[in-house]
Amino acid sequence: MKYPAGFGALMRRLSSLPGIGRRSAERIVFHLLALPEEEVQALAEAMLRLRRELGECGRCFALCDTGGVCSICADPRRDKSRVCVVEHFKDVFVFEEGGAYRGLYHVLGGAISPLDGVHPEDLHIEELVDRVRTEGIAEVIVATNPTVAGDTTAVYIASRLKGLPVKVTRLAAGMPVGGELEYADPLTLARALEGRGEISIDE
Amino acid sequence: MKYPAGFGALMRRLSSLPGIGRRSAERIVFHLLALPEEEVQALAEAMLRLRRELGECGRCFALCDTGGVCSICADPRRDKSRVCVVEHFKDVFVFEEGGAYRGLYHVLGGAISPLDGVHPEDLHIEELVDRVRTEGIAEVIVATNPTVAGDTTAVYIASRLKGLPVKVTRLAAGMPVGGELEYADPLTLARALEGRGEISIDE
Repeated sequence: MKYPAGFGALMRRLSSLPGIGRRSAERIVFHLLALPEEEVQALAEAMLRLRRELGECGRCFALCDTGGVCSICADPRRDKSRVCVVEHFKDVFVFEEGGAYRGLYHVLGGAISPLDGVHPEDLHIEELVDRVRTEGIAEVIVATNPTVAGDTTAVYIASRLKGLPVKVTRLAAGMPVGGELEYADPLTLARALEGRGEISIDE
Repeated sequence: MKYPAGFGALMRRLSSLPGIGRRSAERIVFHLLALPEEEVQALAEAMLRLRRELGECGRCFALCDTGGVCSICADPRRDKSRVCVVEHFKDVFVFEEGGAYRGLYHVLGGAISPLDGVHPEDLHIEELVDRVRTEGIAEVIVATNPTVAGDTTAVYIASRLKGLPVKVTRLAAGMPVGGELEYADPLTLARALEGRGEISIDE
């Protein structure tokens, strides 16, 4: 017996999600079959609403409820003289989970990687330069991933900000090279933040 | 920063599914945010359709597309003289995955457990007796779980079928006692099927 059509279709879609194999997908479908209809409906609707209800912060490009500015930019208790620059909006959650950082963020939307067709103008780098010019930012902490693309981006940002009255720093070693920020534990991240050093550019 | 409302709501719903923890749920939400809108829509719709499109077989109560009889009951190549009795419709998939069994099924919808409020009349036992009376079934293989409830159900079924011209057998040992059929591997299941023995009732 093959799975009934609707069962198999949902199973295939679920197994394409990260971390869900064939066996887990099967268990989830059985679970959904046993749930009250309203709960399945609520789950499906939460998925459909997800994108409608989420937008980018107009200032730092972090994920936020649509319209206006995110809760971090709007928080008067955050240190507005520091901006932490990350590649992806999910990296913001990694920092916030640790709780060691009390400044603002700036989400680039990726890292410079010409081979993958990602050039500086594809990222929110100009917007960062504008923020440094107008917001009285004292320090830009570049927290791009410790990869070739992330390092390239860090150096590029430092060169774009050169001449402006701002200190440009990079997260300290402490993170495994070649790793992804997304998988760092809060402690490692706090250490890396603490030991951050200035980016030097050879001219 | 807390997660934006829609993000957190979907994450909570996803983490309530079996096998999905907080961290997997977060990764899935990020994945959904990156997917083309149509694919998220297709996934949500597959969930909503699931129950609409699935029903119970009118004869054996296995899961099938709505209306009529399941693909196993309808298959002319299946051995119609044998019926394997299972507690849940998902157990049918476990047997079918192994491929060792070529007869029909009968899904009870649970096992007798008075403490949990499940009595014989809550299960499809009368329908099984009717099938034995009218379908010329030679053997009923009781494959309820090797638990107290499953054993009770097996003995109850054997006593209800007593006097009818049918052999009533039980899956052989080979499965860990106290375990669940759902987690058995195909080989163990094939062995248990092979060594099945008749249920004796003391009178």
